[in-house]
Amino acid sequence: MYSVPDRFEIEKSYREIQSLICEKMESCDGRGTFIKDEWSRRGGGGGLTRVMSEGNVLEKAGVNFSAVEGEVTPMMAKSLKVDAAWFFATGVSIVMHPKNPNVPIIHMNVRYFETDDGTYWFGGGIDLTPHYIVNDQASYFHKKLKQVCDKYEPSWYDKFKKEADDYFFIPHRNETRGVGGIFYDHLAEHNSLPKQQIFDFSCDLGRAFPEIYTHLIALNRDEPFNEHQKEWQKLRRGRYVEFNLVYDRGTRFGLMSNGRTESILMSLPKEANWFYDFNPKEGSPEELTLRNLKKGVDWINAF
Amino acid sequence: MYSVPDRFEIEKSYREIQSLICEKMESCDGRGTFIKDEWSRRGGGGGLTRVMSEGNVLEKAGVNFSAVEGEVTPMMAKSLKVDAAWFFATGVSIVMHPKNPNVPIIHMNVRYFETDDGTYWFGGGIDLTPHYIVNDQASYFHKKLKQVCDKYEPSWYDKFKKEADDYFFIPHRNETRGVGGIFYDHLAEHNSLPKQQIFDFSCDLGRAFPEIYTHLIALNRDEPFNEHQKEWQKLRRGRYVEFNLVYDRGTRFGLMSNGRTESILMSLPKEANWFYDFNPKEGSPEELTLRNLKKGVDWINAF
Repeated sequence: MYSVPDRFEIEKSYREIQSLICEKMESCDGRGTFIKDEWSRRGGGGGLTRVMSEGNVLEKAGVNFSAVEGEVTPMMAKSLKVDAAWFFATGVSIVMHPKNPNVPIIHMNVRYFETDDGTYWFGGGIDLTPHYIVNDQASYFHKKLKQVCDKYEPSWYDKFKKEADDYFFIPHRNETRGVGGIFYDHLAEHNSLPKQQIFDFSCDLGRAFPEIYTHLIALNRDEPFNEHQKEWQKLRRGRYVEFNLVYDRGTRFGLMSNGRTESILMSLPKEANWFYDFNPKEGSPEELTLRNLKKGVDWINAF
Repeated sequence: MYSVPDRFEIEKSYREIQSLICEKMESCDGRGTFIKDEWSRRGGGGGLTRVMSEGNVLEKAGVNFSAVEGEVTPMMAKSLKVDAAWFFATGVSIVMHPKNPNVPIIHMNVRYFETDDGTYWFGGGIDLTPHYIVNDQASYFHKKLKQVCDKYEPSWYDKFKKEADDYFFIPHRNETRGVGGIFYDHLAEHNSLPKQQIFDFSCDLGRAFPEIYTHLIALNRDEPFNEHQKEWQKLRRGRYVEFNLVYDRGTRFGLMSNGRTESILMSLPKEANWFYDFNPKEGSPEELTLRNLKKGVDWINAF
């Protein structure tokens, strides 16, 4: 017996969120279109990967929807700490890399997981990775996320913001990936919260995405940039690659469990650079950005 | 009580091998020089990282020497399966990324590890990653490695070649990293082989490196190349990044154990690219190369 909403309703809504986001981002971009790549998973289910390349604003953007199911493998049982035979998982996962280094990279993910013994939970998150931090914009980003959280539960923003600081962190660089955002996992597990509430929250997040990102794009898309700033962008993208390949749980779980490689790695930028021991000049915009890639910054109230 | 050769002799020889390789590669390159970056490790020991950028032939090349020691951490005990209080490790680690896509990427590593309870072993390997496979050159590479192996023990080449096929493999791409080479680990552990023999073998490998790579450079450095080939090179470098960050044991152990990040990640190329679902044209040189990125190719006898 399924509690309301059931997996079919969740899958349907997440699929619609993918469409909505692609539509809104296409019309914002003005040139690029998201190609459609449908795939099925050996073992059950499949997905629709949508990718934009070489738009006006977006150099490489991926919006992946999947709804997969199948036997719980021993690796999955261990990694997800579930003890069941069959699982179902659906979600939308997004990474967008802009051309202009003044436009930030953005990531969002909403997902739902259930097993045949009645266990279920929601997970997700959204985080912003500016190549150059603009305090007002980081503040705007966090305020919008707080609005979505506050609509459901006043304690969430602080909690999920802290979880994002901890999750989107690159230990070997001692840097956060960007200015953070929110992150949550295993939400509503063991009926700790009403399923409907968490589902609505995740849909609200998904629908807030295009509004937030198109606003940030509008503020920055016409800012001029030079070669030096492009190089810095590629170096920051290198850090993004490091985070995703070394630490990101979704990426690593996907690769290790024989997931669809192209859909998993669509998060990687078109071009990334590594320079040995790069250190930005004292007082430069690059150095100021680095200084703020720290956990625990109160982006809403500090500026 | 130490068996001969002791850690001091091994460290000294590996240090000399680093110098020799840098010298020979500088004179081959004709323009680039290896800068010297000395570092020390909190906890004991240190190293000398040498990096060339923007040479005639070598776009980014790193030759790292380290000799570190300290307390065996719980993570190290688990990962290396040792039960001792103090360790010492020394080695030379090399990755070279050429500018011209007709010149292959090369990697080599020789290392020695011991603990205060008398345990010790040698590990290492060398493998070649051509952007475009040339059968004769892959064959030459393997013959040279076989020569070094055969000088010590006729069974080694086959054994270590198979281990390299298994190790330098990217499961999520179902591709080998390149045409393989040799790989060995825990050699001479439990006095299974004479320490002197394995030490001499590792030094011979180190000294063979510049001869082998300068020969491969000489064959290819003046080959013309175009933008399309450069793009393919950057895509292959993307795969190299994937292998190193997702699977390479040394890289992951280094990052997780708070090693010196810049020395560990000097293996990453200056520029790497990712395109969504790239598939080379049927019958193109790129596709022919992809087809041969497989385990179990007998490079010496097949061509």
